[in-house]
Amino acid sequence: MSPGPIRLTGHAYTTLRPAGAACITGGFWADRRRTNAEVSIAQGPAKLEAAGNLANLRAAADGGNTFTGDYPFQDSDVHKWLEAASWQLADQPENAELAAHVDQLIALLASAQEPDGYLQTYFQVAHPEKRWQDLRWGHELYCAGHLIQAAVAHRRATGRDELLAVAVRFAVHVDSVFGPDKAVDGVCGHPEIETALVELYRETRERRWLDLAGYFVERRGHGLLDGERRPGAVYWQDHVPVREATTVAGHAVRQLYLLAGATDLAAETGDADLRVSLERLWAAMAGTKTYLTGGVGSRYEGEAFGEPYELPADRAYAETCAAIASVQWSWRMALLTGEAKYSDLVERTLFNGFLSGVGLDGDSWLYVNPLQIRESYEDSGGDKSARRTPWFRCACCPPNVMRLLASLPHYMASGDGEGLQLHQFATGVFEAGGGRVRVATDYPWGGRIAVTVEEAPGAEWTLSVRIPAWCEDFTATAPDGGAPAETVPGWLRLRRRWQPGDTLTVDLDLTARLTRPDPRVDAVRGCVAIERGPLVHCLEGVDQRPGVPFDELTLPYGAHLAVRHEPDLLGGVTVVSADGRIRGSADAVRLTAVPYCAWANRRPGPMRVWIPES
Amino acid sequence: MSPGPIRLTGHAYTTLRPAGAACITGGFWADRRRTNAEVSIAQGPAKLEAAGNLANLRAAADGGNTFTGDYPFQDSDVHKWLEAASWQLADQPENAELAAHVDQLIALLASAQEPDGYLQTYFQVAHPEKRWQDLRWGHELYCAGHLIQAAVAHRRATGRDELLAVAVRFAVHVDSVFGPDKAVDGVCGHPEIETALVELYRETRERRWLDLAGYFVERRGHGLLDGERRPGAVYWQDHVPVREATTVAGHAVRQLYLLAGATDLAAETGDADLRVSLERLWAAMAGTKTYLTGGVGSRYEGEAFGEPYELPADRAYAETCAAIASVQWSWRMALLTGEAKYSDLVERTLFNGFLSGVGLDGDSWLYVNPLQIRESYEDSGGDKSARRTPWFRCACCPPNVMRLLASLPHYMASGDGEGLQLHQFATGVFEAGGGRVRVATDYPWGGRIAVTVEEAPGAEWTLSVRIPAWCEDFTATAPDGGAPAETVPGWLRLRRRWQPGDTLTVDLDLTARLTRPDPRVDAVRGCVAIERGPLVHCLEGVDQRPGVPFDELTLPYGAHLAVRHEPDLLGGVTVVSADGRIRGSADAVRLTAVPYCAWANRRPGPMRVWIPES
Repeated sequence: MSPGPIRLTGHAYTTLRPAGAACITGGFWADRRRTNAEVSIAQGPAKLEAAGNLANLRAAADGGNTFTGDYPFQDSDVHKWLEAASWQLADQPENAELAAHVDQLIALLASAQEPDGYLQTYFQVAHPEKRWQDLRWGHELYCAGHLIQAAVAHRRATGRDELLAVAVRFAVHVDSVFGPDKAVDGVCGHPEIETALVELYRETRERRWLDLAGYFVERRGHGLLDGERRPGAVYWQDHVPVREATTVAGHAVRQLYLLAGATDLAAETGDADLRVSLERLWAAMAGTKTYLTGGVGSRYEGEAFGEPYELPADRAYAETCAAIASVQWSWRMALLTGEAKYSDLVERTLFNGFLSGVGLDGDSWLYVNPLQIRESYEDSGGDKSARRTPWFRCACCPPNVMRLLASLPHYMASGDGEGLQLHQFATGVFEAGGGRVRVATDYPWGGRIAVTVEEAPGAEWTLSVRIPAWCEDFTATAPDGGAPAETVPGWLRLRRRWQPGDTLTVDLDLTARLTRPDPRVDAVRGCVAIERGPLVHCLEGVDQRPGVPFDELTLPYGAHLAVRHEPDLLGGVTVVSADGRIRGSADAVRLTAVPYCAWANRRPGPMRVWIPES
Repeated sequence: MSPGPIRLTGHAYTTLRPAGAACITGGFWADRRRTNAEVSIAQGPAKLEAAGNLANLRAAADGGNTFTGDYPFQDSDVHKWLEAASWQLADQPENAELAAHVDQLIALLASAQEPDGYLQTYFQVAHPEKRWQDLRWGHELYCAGHLIQAAVAHRRATGRDELLAVAVRFAVHVDSVFGPDKAVDGVCGHPEIETALVELYRETRERRWLDLAGYFVERRGHGLLDGERRPGAVYWQDHVPVREATTVAGHAVRQLYLLAGATDLAAETGDADLRVSLERLWAAMAGTKTYLTGGVGSRYEGEAFGEPYELPADRAYAETCAAIASVQWSWRMALLTGEAKYSDLVERTLFNGFLSGVGLDGDSWLYVNPLQIRESYEDSGGDKSARRTPWFRCACCPPNVMRLLASLPHYMASGDGEGLQLHQFATGVFEAGGGRVRVATDYPWGGRIAVTVEEAPGAEWTLSVRIPAWCEDFTATAPDGGAPAETVPGWLRLRRRWQPGDTLTVDLDLTARLTRPDPRVDAVRGCVAIERGPLVHCLEGVDQRPGVPFDELTLPYGAHLAVRHEPDLLGGVTVVSADGRIRGSADAVRLTAVPYCAWANRRPGPMRVWIPES
């Protein structure tokens, strides 16, 4: 049972509240989280050392003047790793090696911090004269935000205050500098501090942090960042106030971190106007600017959202960090509103456009997550390669994946005054809404989800299970052998007096399906995609008959889809196969589609999610 | 009768030789060239003054230290305008105002030149210590190349040597610095000097310039530019030697200027291996990386060629300068090989992806030339806007358009030992292959091309007229009333004894047609385009029935295409209309398509070339 992010205050204005405790004990996500713990997080300190991030901290502590790395925000990689390691420590308090690494890095951060609380090695070491002088590119509040998030995680996971003390000193310094009547009236070129300050408020219960978060949210969109300069105000999220925006735009991660922070703000303040804006923006994103995989931010240029329905498969940018930010925001919206559609997108994103970002080995990464690689693809290397890479020059994604996987149990369930809501399906134990349930499932390979109540109030209590939007058919078996009668959009709800041991079993129909795209998506007109349950599948060259011309493959819309589980393939995946065609030929050719989340884990080759219709 | 570019030496190894003299006297291109002369070129000096280019030259002359503009290559705008103005002066030697402007700028350049011949104000004024230190971004040889081209044009147009003297001084300086055993063994991050030096060789007949051009072509592709740095060797065209390359790649303008220079080199040296490489690269470009409009360079990221068949309509970059470079290269390949396919692409590019780059007013420009603008398009302004702009921060395209239009007559005809070849169709007079013809045509609105021989040798002589690849049917009437019998691929040839006044009349069938895309182009699968003759048409929102949902329009493949000439629309254009549909409805809706070259000249709105099939 581990603590997690978004620990709402008692008077928060949300429909649902996150689980008080949650753990994943087996199945798909447990496997991925084990690799995350044993490989990704475990290797973190060595990766940060090799990339120079720790040298920067030592230089700041020792008064050195050599900065390593290409970006002013190098420190944030350390902060994000510390956040990931902290959530992990909550799961594994006995992991002494990890605890020692965490303690070392916290001590290093403390030693690097200036007496006035300032902490960003790029400016300390290389450009002390430019402190707070370049809000567009400096990323100082961004780094402060990640430091705060790490500190909050460390406090919740360990109960200790060392890192929180560092973060609060920095936050106090920020509060002394920023404000309408202070030295700087401005916002950061990269949102992140907003959500962090709300979490700091939640953790410390000091109102000043909520107020400061509100200041940063409200001051944005008023041209403080001189949007005349390239790449322009929309890149920095300074083109329009959140309250007035009609669609998501600009740099995807910046946009979504900001909206997550604004949602945190609305959750704690009950600001109904802000909530309406957020609902509008989320609908625009999910309806017009999101890939089938849940990936967002289609443009390489500016790592940005494109226009509505501008969703190219080949040049999909779909940064891993943007998928993470989308999950973080959607989950906050799910809590705020109680609506299942937000968790539908969380599921789609987690199982596809997010998970593709990390290799099965936990040690190889994708920064961009395209939906098509041609046979003629020429790898230019670098961060934006479609080949997995051990680490990036701009290493934002790997520790971001680590912190989401480490905190994943907290995206699974929520509670309210009526009962418990199961949003995502993983074997584990979840405590919320005054009760506790044990979930057993082979999801996403199997569709059966057995929810056994371990603790419930004596009175009537409601157990709710999300019925995914992709699911056209399901059955449910109540403890008395009958089927639950009451459903509301997206939810199966069963209200009754629960006895410990009572089990609600839901069977989601996982029949593989062919999906046609929205006809407004120009880039994939005339194509179909294969999906099964929450998983988007893709053709990889390595799975097709040798010698077939991959880029000429087509699939008839009515094709029969055959399903088989392959325990020895890609760590165990269910594969979908169908009779396709080679363009210009009537002969059938067997096509094999693996889950997109597992692509690019074998020898490099072509891949496609959207297959031209025969 | 005006002189032009590519004045081959007598011993050049080309199949064809450019026209000795050429002029366009009426019709479509005459109108465009008149606007080019009266508006675009005439306003050039004021635009260059306003943008600071001339202030930079004065600063260099006066020892100032204030540089204006964002780019080290600002001078090249001046050089390209001087080249355009020189070609224009050849047409209008009586234009005293233009001649005075030219003389002033030449004097200014001469006064800005260093005693050692160096001339680039960015380094002279702002960074004298960095001269020749940053070959990747410095653009010094690039600027030298444009200076040389301007000087060659000025010499050919006026017979005067002032600008040539400046250029030769700079070239001598370059030759003293660059070479295997000299101070710098390297190449420029932006090709351009190569083609310029071959032209300088042609103009001066000094072999050293051809050798230096050869050096710059051959040294490229050997990693001299430290391709580890971003954006990488392929951007700078240093990833592979031209001789070994298998496809066009990287920054499109850089790639195509280089290949034009390499073609010039092959033309003057007879290098058969180089020619084979160039033919291979052109086939790769034309077959897999060229838009229907002739536009090339599909990616915003790096202004680069994408993969084969990566040709998105909405995010087509298709820089105007890249279209110009494509025309320049293809024309050189046409002369080298004598094959009509090169002039087919010249025609497609000139009438569509090039001409879209300049507004009908001659005073508004497009840097990028997309094939689709959605209703939801939000203009972010700046150089890459899909709205016409009076000038650009990076003003490479406008003077480039000016110089191509000013020299356009020289892309129309060629000659060889047998006779004259007419590659492009415009009313005018062309002298080549020992004869002279007068052409009368209403092309591209009408398909009749009447070629009247004004002078021909007394012996048998061959008049050749290109039959465009798009043309499925044509008739030809020989002077004796019969039809010419002999054709070779792409050419109608008539060999006979010509008398002055003999007319060959060719009628190309201009029936409007629906074009389906290559099925390998993922981005426009399931769409059709409307073409008529050499013109690609497009739907613009402003021409459609008010209130129709533009992005929902579709067109049946078998639709009847109606054609009418609208003399008062867009300066006089032929319009194609057809019955389309609104997605989800069976009702017909009349669609009206104007030539793509005339788009974006009225109120802003959506546009598309590729229309989804009903």
